[in-house]
Amino acid sequence: MKKGFSIGVDLGGTNIKAGLVRNDGIRPEIVLKKSVPTRLTGSAADICRDIAALCGDICRDAGISLSDVGSIGVGSPGSVSGGVVHNAENLGFSEVPLRDMISELVGSEISVSLANDANAAAYGELVTGCGVGCDSIVAITLGTGVGGGIVLGGKIVEGHNGAAGEIGHIIINNGGRLCGCGCRGCFEAYCSATALIAITKEKMTRRPDSLLHSISSESGVDGKTAFDAARLGDAAAIEIIEEYIDNLAAGVASVIQMFQPEIVCIGGGISKEGEGLVAPLREKVYSMVYQDVSIEKTKIVAAQLGNDAGIIGAASISC
Amino acid sequence: MKKGFSIGVDLGGTNIKAGLVRNDGIRPEIVLKKSVPTRLTGSAADICRDIAALCGDICRDAGISLSDVGSIGVGSPGSVSGGVVHNAENLGFSEVPLRDMISELVGSEISVSLANDANAAAYGELVTGCGVGCDSIVAITLGTGVGGGIVLGGKIVEGHNGAAGEIGHIIINNGGRLCGCGCRGCFEAYCSATALIAITKEKMTRRPDSLLHSISSESGVDGKTAFDAARLGDAAAIEIIEEYIDNLAAGVASVIQMFQPEIVCIGGGISKEGEGLVAPLREKVYSMVYQDVSIEKTKIVAAQLGNDAGIIGAASISC
Repeated sequence: MKKGFSIGVDLGGTNIKAGLVRNDGIRPEIVLKKSVPTRLTGSAADICRDIAALCGDICRDAGISLSDVGSIGVGSPGSVSGGVVHNAENLGFSEVPLRDMISELVGSEISVSLANDANAAAYGELVTGCGVGCDSIVAITLGTGVGGGIVLGGKIVEGHNGAAGEIGHIIINNGGRLCGCGCRGCFEAYCSATALIAITKEKMTRRPDSLLHSISSESGVDGKTAFDAARLGDAAAIEIIEEYIDNLAAGVASVIQMFQPEIVCIGGGISKEGEGLVAPLREKVYSMVYQDVSIEKTKIVAAQLGNDAGIIGAASISC
Repeated sequence: MKKGFSIGVDLGGTNIKAGLVRNDGIRPEIVLKKSVPTRLTGSAADICRDIAALCGDICRDAGISLSDVGSIGVGSPGSVSGGVVHNAENLGFSEVPLRDMISELVGSEISVSLANDANAAAYGELVTGCGVGCDSIVAITLGTGVGGGIVLGGKIVEGHNGAAGEIGHIIINNGGRLCGCGCRGCFEAYCSATALIAITKEKMTRRPDSLLHSISSESGVDGKTAFDAARLGDAAAIEIIEEYIDNLAAGVASVIQMFQPEIVCIGGGISKEGEGLVAPLREKVYSMVYQDVSIEKTKIVAAQLGNDAGIIGAASISC
C-alpha cells in the first residue's frame, strides 16, 4: 500500500456498494460509502464500468482524485481465484477476468485485487473487526444461506478452483433435511435463517398452543421469532433454539476440527442475537472439540462489522 | 536443501521409523530404512536420543557421515506447531520442544523440522505419491481411527494450536453413532476400520444367513470382510458397503466444500480396496459437491506410498 486511501467494493446481486477506506490510522476505516444498483444485464463489461464510475464518484465526493487511491479491492459472489470469477450464477458470470477488466478502466497505477465476497468479509473482520490481532479466522454467515470465508496465516483460502469455503454445504446430518443444493443434511439446511424459519413454521403446526403464534401474528415468522418466544419461556420455541444451537455447534465443531483457526466469527442476521446465541454455542462446541483442556481453544464470537466487513476486507486485501 | 540427502523420521507409538532420502533425482526417494521400538518411558529426551542414534546408524549403514545430510524432518503424533509437540497422549508428551531438542543432539549444521505425522504423510503423497504436480492435498487415512493431513499452497495447515486436520472428528451425523472421543456422529465413528468392523458385526447378529459368517470364520472379522462378501453378492455385505461409502462420501464432500484441494487421497488399511472403494466414492461425492459442472473437480484417489509417505514427507518438509 503506497497511498493513504484504498477503495473496497462489495459487488452484490442487488447493489454494488463501495467505500473509501483510510489506511493511515491504527486500523483501516471507511470514510465514505456509495452504492448503485447492480445492472443484471449479464454483461461483465457493464458492471466493470459501473464499478469504475462508482470509484470515481466516491473520490469526487471526498475531494480527492482517483490517482490518490493506491488500490481497489473487489469482493464478488461466486468462485474466485487468480483475479477471475469462474462462476457467479446471480451475476451470470462465467470465467470473467474481472480484475484485469477493472484494471484496464482505472489505469495501471492503481492496483486491483479480487476476492470472493465471503472471504473479503472474513478478511475485514480480521483486520478491523472481531479478529484484530489474529492471523486466522473462519467467518460463518447465517443468512438466507450459510456462507463461509476462510483466512489462514493472513491469506485467503480460495481452493484450487476458487470454490473453497462452502461451509453451508458441509454435511452435518447425512441423509437428513433437504438442502436447496439438492443434497440432504447440509449445514445450511439446518442453520440458515431460511431453515430456522421453516423449522419454526413446522413446529407451529404441531404446537397450536405455542407463543410462536402470537409473536409472529403481526410481522410473520422470521429468524427472530423462535428466539423471542424462547426468551419468554415458550417450550416449543426453546426446543427449536436448543436444536438450532445443537446443529450450529456440529457445523462449527467441524470447522474447528478442520482448521483450528484463532477465531470463528458468526455473522449474518441470526448473529444479531449476540451472546444469547454465541454463549450456549461456545459451551456446546467446546464440549465437542476440546476434550484435551490443555489445547488452546478457538475463540467463538459474533461478527462486529456487519455489511461493512466486505468493503473493508476488499479494500484491505488490495493493500 | 543444500545437500543430496535428508532423513525423514516417522515417530510412532510403537516404532520410530527413519529413512535416508535421496533428493537429487527427479523426485525424493528412500534409499535406506531402519527402525527401533519407541521407548514409552514418557521421557522426550530418551526419544530424542533414540532418533539421533537412529539417524547416525542410517548414515553409517549408507556409508556417509551425518554431516552429509542436509536436514532431518520428524513426523510426530499429536498437535504440533512451531517445532513443539503441544500434546501427544500416546507418547506422554506435553509442550515438548522436540525440534530444538533433536537439533541440539545432531548439531547446528543440520536443519531439523517437525510436523504432525498425518500432515507429513500428506506432504509425502504430494511430493512423490498420488499428488505429484499438485500444490494442495487433503489426505484421509481410514485406519484404527480416521486421520487427516492438509497441505494448501505447498504449506502444511497446522492450525493456531497445532491441532488442525482432525478430520475424523468432523460431525457427519449429528447425534448419531458414539465415537471414541465421546461425541456422537463423528466421521470416524462411521468410517474407521474399527467402525467398519463393529458395523459388520452388528449386521451379522441380525443376518445369520449372511456370507459374512463363513468369510470371517477363519480369521475373524476385519476391515476386508464386508468388502469380500459384497464382491460375492451377499446382500447384507452390500448394504454395509453402500452405507459405508455413503458416509465416507459425506466426510469427503465436507472436506472438499471446505478446502477444494486439487486432490483428496484416501489412505490407511481400507484404501487397499483401491478402485472398488474409490470409484463409487468418487461418483457419490461428485453428485453431492459439483452441481455446477463447469467447476474443476477435486481428484479423489487412493494413496500410493503406504507407510513410506510419512518418512518421505518428513524428509521433504525439512528440505
